[in-house]
Amino acid sequence: MKRSQRIAAMTHYFKENPRILVSLPFFVKTYEAAKSSISEDIDIIDDMFRQLGIGRIETVSGYSGGVKYVPDYPLEASQNFIDELIELLKDPTRILPGGYLYMSDLLGHNYYVRRIGKIFGSAFQHIEADYVVTVATKGIPIAYAVAEALNLPVVIIRRDPIVTEGSTISINYVSGSSRKIQSMALAKRHITPGSNVILVDDFMKAGGTIKGMESLMAEFDAHVKGIGVLAEAEDEDEERRVMNYTSLLKIHDVNEKTQDVKVMRGNYFDS
Amino acid sequence: MKRSQRIAAMTHYFKENPRILVSLPFFVKTYEAAKSSISEDIDIIDDMFRQLGIGRIETVSGYSGGVKYVPDYPLEASQNFIDELIELLKDPTRILPGGYLYMSDLLGHNYYVRRIGKIFGSAFQHIEADYVVTVATKGIPIAYAVAEALNLPVVIIRRDPIVTEGSTISINYVSGSSRKIQSMALAKRHITPGSNVILVDDFMKAGGTIKGMESLMAEFDAHVKGIGVLAEAEDEDEERRVMNYTSLLKIHDVNEKTQDVKVMRGNYFDS
Repeated sequence: MKRSQRIAAMTHYFKENPRILVSLPFFVKTYEAAKSSISEDIDIIDDMFRQLGIGRIETVSGYSGGVKYVPDYPLEASQNFIDELIELLKDPTRILPGGYLYMSDLLGHNYYVRRIGKIFGSAFQHIEADYVVTVATKGIPIAYAVAEALNLPVVIIRRDPIVTEGSTISINYVSGSSRKIQSMALAKRHITPGSNVILVDDFMKAGGTIKGMESLMAEFDAHVKGIGVLAEAEDEDEERRVMNYTSLLKIHDVNEKTQDVKVMRGNYFDS
Repeated sequence: MKRSQRIAAMTHYFKENPRILVSLPFFVKTYEAAKSSISEDIDIIDDMFRQLGIGRIETVSGYSGGVKYVPDYPLEASQNFIDELIELLKDPTRILPGGYLYMSDLLGHNYYVRRIGKIFGSAFQHIEADYVVTVATKGIPIAYAVAEALNLPVVIIRRDPIVTEGSTISINYVSGSSRKIQSMALAKRHITPGSNVILVDDFMKAGGTIKGMESLMAEFDAHVKGIGVLAEAEDEDEERRVMNYTSLLKIHDVNEKTQDVKVMRGNYFDS
């Protein structure tokens, strides 16, 4: 196999297996090439990935060492992408009754969802977590995209406990927007007690849902190590109940009368 | 830029943009290389992608032509993957009360979900569709994975209509498993009338849910061009209400007494 062929195959391999350690002998055997050639191939790919701003190939030395692809999304590219999203969200036809903003079409596209996942992946890259946890429904695609970047499994909390998951733990919480008591549930076998988790959701107002997720995680003796919400909005009537979180968008005002939508970059881009 | 560098960058580009037509002049400009060099690079990548069994680079000739990456998952690799899944599912600790089988942990891993998406992507590669449609909750990750392979947007039907989507159309249907009347809803602006859609879900027994999705699609004047379910199971009490569908797994029997689980390849692998 020629170098150019190996580079195509190895680029594919790294992109399919983010954050997974692979030994050089594996590549040596797979591509029937000398270790020195493989090392040079990896240097070329590492250099190119850095130039493209998609991450880096990290070398782990020692007996059980090897290389792994660590995805990254540089701050400037993240800002450009979020600004692109903000322009789309400012469209007054997105205003829904009640001052909500229609976003489901955008969250239906892998183009947007995967980039959102990559940004959170960069934001949380130094957290040692065991699961990405979300609550049905709209947070699910975002959670899978974050999990892809971090090579973690996803756990979905349900609002409607169903029979096909075995015994569950459920909690009640007060929804910030409706002030109603709601419940969420998770099957016992979903999370190993004592795990570290990252919570992900699409939207946060007062933070009642995130707070509920935190309570449920406490029931599993799980430690919340990071919280990511795509968009946060202020609640006029209530103080925020969650303090340490990362947001990519801030929805300041959705005015049905003036048809004005004020959206800004979230706190990930502060400072 | 050297050939090996271009190959790394272009392999990344194709994998990020499946089924999107890109003109050769775009690559010529981006990598400051001669058109003949770019053509050779593409031949190398095409050849490697075919060897790896991950698809091909198709050339579209003419003035508005170019090249595009069409992902594929060869039948043999699909069979091996599904057999791997079957081995995992046979584990008797997966048996849940009521004869259900615990699969949520597997569906929480991108490793499994993305491969399931790629197989359906191959199965449906010749269908001209506008959307991949699923119903909350467990079908969602599968739908995004299928949509990724086919470069289509995802539309999520809700069982719990919520306020933040604008006006919705809802239908009632009879659930096969519980014999209860249930409802599903979709915001009007989600689907353009007259669209072609592919329906995706994780599980089908008598087919009541899929039938409900079909009815809802009819309300949008949408044409169902393909139906994909990860696992089908027979319903002892009722005949199947959906005929043309593609399944990857068949769950024949989950016996709580004998702890026996019979799972086989689905109808995609028939003939």
